[in-house]
This record gives sequence, structure tokens and C-alpha cells, in this order.
Amino acid sequence: MTDNPKILNVELGTKSYPIYIGGGLLSLESAFTKHIHGQQVMIVTNTTVAPLYLDKLRGLLGNFNVESVILPDGEQFKTLETVNKVFDVLLKSKFDRNSTLIALGGGVVGDITGFAAASYLRGVDFLQVPTTLLSQVDSSVGGKTGVNHDLGKNMIGAFYQPKAVIIDVDTLDTLSNREFSAGMAEVIKYGLLGNADFLSMIEANIESIMGREKDFIIDIVFRSCNDKARIVALDEFEKGKRALLNLGHTFGHGIENTLGYGTYLHGEAISIGMVMALKLSMDEGHLTEEDVQRVQSILSKANLPTSIKKNVGSEALINAMSLDKKSIDGEIRLVLLKRLGDSYLTDSYSKENFSKVVDSFCH
Amino acid sequence: MTDNPKILNVELGTKSYPIYIGGGLLSLESAFTKHIHGQQVMIVTNTTVAPLYLDKLRGLLGNFNVESVILPDGEQFKTLETVNKVFDVLLKSKFDRNSTLIALGGGVVGDITGFAAASYLRGVDFLQVPTTLLSQVDSSVGGKTGVNHDLGKNMIGAFYQPKAVIIDVDTLDTLSNREFSAGMAEVIKYGLLGNADFLSMIEANIESIMGREKDFIIDIVFRSCNDKARIVALDEFEKGKRALLNLGHTFGHGIENTLGYGTYLHGEAISIGMVMALKLSMDEGHLTEEDVQRVQSILSKANLPTSIKKNVGSEALINAMSLDKKSIDGEIRLVLLKRLGDSYLTDSYSKENFSKVVDSFCH
Repeated sequence: MTDNPKILNVELGTKSYPIYIGGGLLSLESAFTKHIHGQQVMIVTNTTVAPLYLDKLRGLLGNFNVESVILPDGEQFKTLETVNKVFDVLLKSKFDRNSTLIALGGGVVGDITGFAAASYLRGVDFLQVPTTLLSQVDSSVGGKTGVNHDLGKNMIGAFYQPKAVIIDVDTLDTLSNREFSAGMAEVIKYGLLGNADFLSMIEANIESIMGREKDFIIDIVFRSCNDKARIVALDEFEKGKRALLNLGHTFGHGIENTLGYGTYLHGEAISIGMVMALKLSMDEGHLTEEDVQRVQSILSKANLPTSIKKNVGSEALINAMSLDKKSIDGEIRLVLLKRLGDSYLTDSYSKENFSKVVDSFCH
Repeated sequence: MTDNPKILNVELGTKSYPIYIGGGLLSLESAFTKHIHGQQVMIVTNTTVAPLYLDKLRGLLGNFNVESVILPDGEQFKTLETVNKVFDVLLKSKFDRNSTLIALGGGVVGDITGFAAASYLRGVDFLQVPTTLLSQVDSSVGGKTGVNHDLGKNMIGAFYQPKAVIIDVDTLDTLSNREFSAGMAEVIKYGLLGNADFLSMIEANIESIMGREKDFIIDIVFRSCNDKARIVALDEFEKGKRALLNLGHTFGHGIENTLGYGTYLHGEAISIGMVMALKLSMDEGHLTEEDVQRVQSILSKANLPTSIKKNVGSEALINAMSLDKKSIDGEIRLVLLKRLGDSYLTDSYSKENFSKVVDSFCH
């Protein structure tokens, strides 16, 4: 059943676009057709999502010339080579500048498709149709697209905004528990970085959320997207405030880079990274031990890790972190908390405290 | 000797930038340092240009942390793989978001460097320092960046504006006659598409220009950039008027694609393509035989080809043209002339006239 979706707008002048959030949206033709201007539509998806939703979406778009490309599933395929495969299909199908690409899948599919759309013929339209909690609350909104490089995560890409984001929360029904939890890391992040009320709401309803009760899901997706949309509108190109969204990410990317993709899901690495950022915030004199405990408890109830379970050396982790895009002239910039729900970006924390926290997580 | 450069501005709101034109600008430190904001500078050049000008530019930028990458020379290296090699060097050198890339070379170097700058960490600054006539009057201005794909020229890229274009016309002293002529094709194009006075000036002074008299060179580069800057300012993303700059290019790209890169230089293919567009414009009832003869004579005096010297089949050429980025839903859109100096974009020309012109150039 399709209820009326909730609609948010990402305010970016001529690049503004709506986010539709609700159940049954993969059956809501108008949400798609309103944002497709030519006849040529390329659905980009992967081997996991295609059997679940590709036919449904193709059926909905019967009035268009629809092609599809099914990528292998996994972060390890988020490469320039994979983007080039999408270009192959687009060129073989003679797709022109009026084409629309649709990203049907999780964050990897969205990042690849967005970058392909940004670069194909120097830019064609694209829609985000995220099917994982992580991508629904994070990567599908805000126009960050791109791929990994052997030497670092998300190093190659573009700021390129979609024409619409269509979030059918029913797609979460097929998501594994582990993937759902990984998405919860980003949901909890919004509470920590700027919305203490949201953090309390998550805390109070964690069982209902983890039980995937639909009303709660729609609510947390809506609130997360709302927080993200407001921050993106203030800072499309991540020159300032938007960097707050990277709470836990500099640590988290370091963990992912050091252990290699595949050990932790992105959201799991971010969960650990947030705990590291919280502990450093505590050592910097801002948070209490109780604050950190409280958040660790919420993360644990969301079945997220709060410590690194594999062997990681401090030096390797710090080296990987210094390669992060947010670092400037080699300084590792971090998002820390003044209070739960109040974050700031800094590179003037105590290096001793930083080393202490890293050491305590490495072994 | 460095005279005061002429300065043009490309008016694109927050993305506006200056074009400096003059002799000796590779010794004019301020033209560079004014537009470099961080400490990290990567000069991207090629094996032909590096021995001529790399040390000079490095010397000028002694106060920065300057690295360089020297690419193989040639259109066949304008690929995603080559861009990836630039990323390798940037990442190994730990270049951050405050980095500046400098494209030192011709159009290929500029296109690759611009796309690398657009995509590295989702966008860093870059400067264009074009060293060929073709790149000085065309590709370095306007923010079109990108690479070729096996299935077509310039299919992958971004609209991404440089922070400045620094044109030292002294670099033309080392340019071969053939390359200089190829650049003249684009110079003559500006006269044809919108500036009949400029066409007459070129015609009247073709010997002095081909003799590379410096004052004339500065004048034609300035006028060309001025025409281009005005058109780009009206239409950054090639939704309308900018397409006029493609006079001769749809035919020309078709020729390049069909014969393979290397047979003709880009400017040579454009020269032939412009004659094809002129003949079709004549058959459409706009130009006279004398108009076409007049332009063919100017092109010939610039040592440019006006017919295809190798075997090319009509069908192959038309098929290659239909893949052009400017084509919409398979229709081949062309820039035709109403008069010399007055162009328009159309897909409603007579298909019979079109075939007749293509047939007359193919054999």
C-alpha cells in the first residue's frame, strides 16, 4: 500500500530537490516520472538488489526506454573500473544528455551511479532510490558521489546533486539485521552531532526501532534526512558546517582502510569511530564518563561494535587517518562533541589525548 | 620580457576567473601566486612540454611545495587510466583539498588535468597554462574537462572551471607548423560563427599571422578568448548558445572517430568539418558558393585540409556522428551558418542535403 509520502526539500537554489519518504514508493509512479525528463532511463543496481526490486521498478517505468546494469555487490567494486563499466553500457545504448540514471541499491550503488551521472557526457540527471537504512539516512542525500582508490576511500568523485531521492522504507524488510544495525550508526550520529532530542527519542524507542516497526522507521529516516538536508543546504561543498556529518568518520575510515574493506561494514566502523571521538571529547574535558556510557549502551542495543575486535596498530591507524580528505596539510581534523547533541570541527585537540585514545583501541 | 598581460574575465558568478594573455607570462610570478591558495602544487605536463617549460615554471613557484607528473604525449592517452595515474601521484604525495593542479601543455593535458582536479577529493583548484594555439584559443577556457572512451571522444568528464588561465604566447615559438595550423582552425571558427569582422581581419592578415608575428598572435588569441568567454558566460553547461562553439565539431569528431585518433590533428578534422557544415549551409540555401570558396581559401592559406584524404565510408561517418554528445534521441544536431559570422544550432536541416554533403566527402 502506498500512503502519501512525507516530503523534505534539500534547499540548494537551482539544484534543490525533494526527498520522498514512505512505504510503497516503488509503486508510486508520479514520484519517479515527475523527475525524468527524457526517454532514456538507466537503472543501476547490484546482484543482491536486482532480484528483489529491479523488475518492480522497470514495470513502473514502462513508458520509458529503460535499460539496466547490474553491478557486483560490495565496497570492493566501488572503483573507477566499475564506473567505466557503467559508461560502457550507457555508450553502447547510445544514451544522450537527456538520459536519467537511477541508483537502485545501497550506498555503493548510489555513489557509483552518482559519479557516473556526474561524469557521463559531463553530467546527466540521476535519481537516488536507496534500499538500505545506511543509504536512506546518509549517502543518498547531499550529492556526495564517488569511488575508492587503492590509496584511500572516496578519494575520487564529485559533488553532484540528484534530481530526487525516493526512499521506500519497505525495502528495509529485506535488509539483514547486520546491515540494518550498520544504518543505525548513522541515525544515532544525527542525535549526537546536533539533535539531543532525537538521541533521546532513539534511546527511548530502541526496541521498537530495532523491531523495525514501520512508523518508527519512517520517523527516524525522516528526522535523519531532515537533519542532513539542513546541514547540506548550509554547505553544499563541505567547506564548513557539513564536516560535522563526519563525526566518527575520520576514525572510522582509518579503521576501514587499515583492516581492509570487508572486515567491518561502514556503519560498524563509524560506530567504533564515534566511540573514539566521544572518548577523546571526554579526555578533552567536554563529556562525562556517563555520557560515553550512555551512547555505548545505545550503540550496543543497536547491535553495533564499540571497540576494534581485530589487531590494528596505532601507527597504521593514524597514518591511514592522516590520508583522510578532511585533513589539511597533514593535520588530522576531527569532529568532537562539546555535549551530546553539540559538535564541532577541530584540529587543535591535545595530540597526547588523541594518541592515548588511539592506543586504547589498538592492540 | 614580460609586458603587462591583457586580461579578460570569464563572468560566471562565484566561478568567474581571469584569462591572462601576453608574452613572457611564464616569468610573471604574480599571475600564478594570486590564484594558488595552499602550499601544495602539482604541475601536470607531458613528455614534449616538460623539457621546454617545466623547470621554468617550477623555478617560478619556488615558495610552494611543487610536485609534477609527466604524462605521455598524445590524444590516445586521454583516458580514465591516465587520470588515475594523476590520482596515484596526488595520493602518494598526500595532496589535500587545498592543493592546486596546474595544466602545463596542450588540450589533452588541460582536459586530463581539469578532470583530475574536478574529481580529486571531489574537487580541488586548478590553473590552465596552455602551450598550444589550439588550447589557448579553445580548450583552456570554459571549463570543459574530460577524457575519451573507447566508444567516443570526450564522453567522460565534468564542467569544472579553472581559477585562472595563463596564456604565455611565447610558448608558441616551440610549436610545430602543423600544430600551429591546427590551432588556426579554431581561430577561424570564431570568425565564422559570430564575428564577421574577425574573419575579415584574419583574412587580411593571414601571412603575418602564419608568420607568427607576436602582435598579431596576441590579437587573435585575445579576440578568440574574448568571443569564447562571452559565449561561455551565457551558457556554462552547454544548454543552448554554447553549442555554437561546436561549428564543424560534430562532423570533425565523426571523422576523428572513424579514422582513429592520430590520422588528423583535432584542428585539422575541425577544418574539414567546418567546410562540411558550410557546404550543408549552402545547400540549405543560406551561403553562396563564393562564401564557401572564401573560407576554403583562408583555411588553405592556414595550411589546413578542406577535404578527407583517406577512405571513409558515409555510413561509418554518420554512425560516429550520431554518437556525438550533442545528439539528442539519436538526432544529429549541427551548427550551420545563416551568413558568415552568423550561426545557429539545428536538427531540422534536410536529411537529403546532409547525406549529399557526407557522400561528397566520403570515398
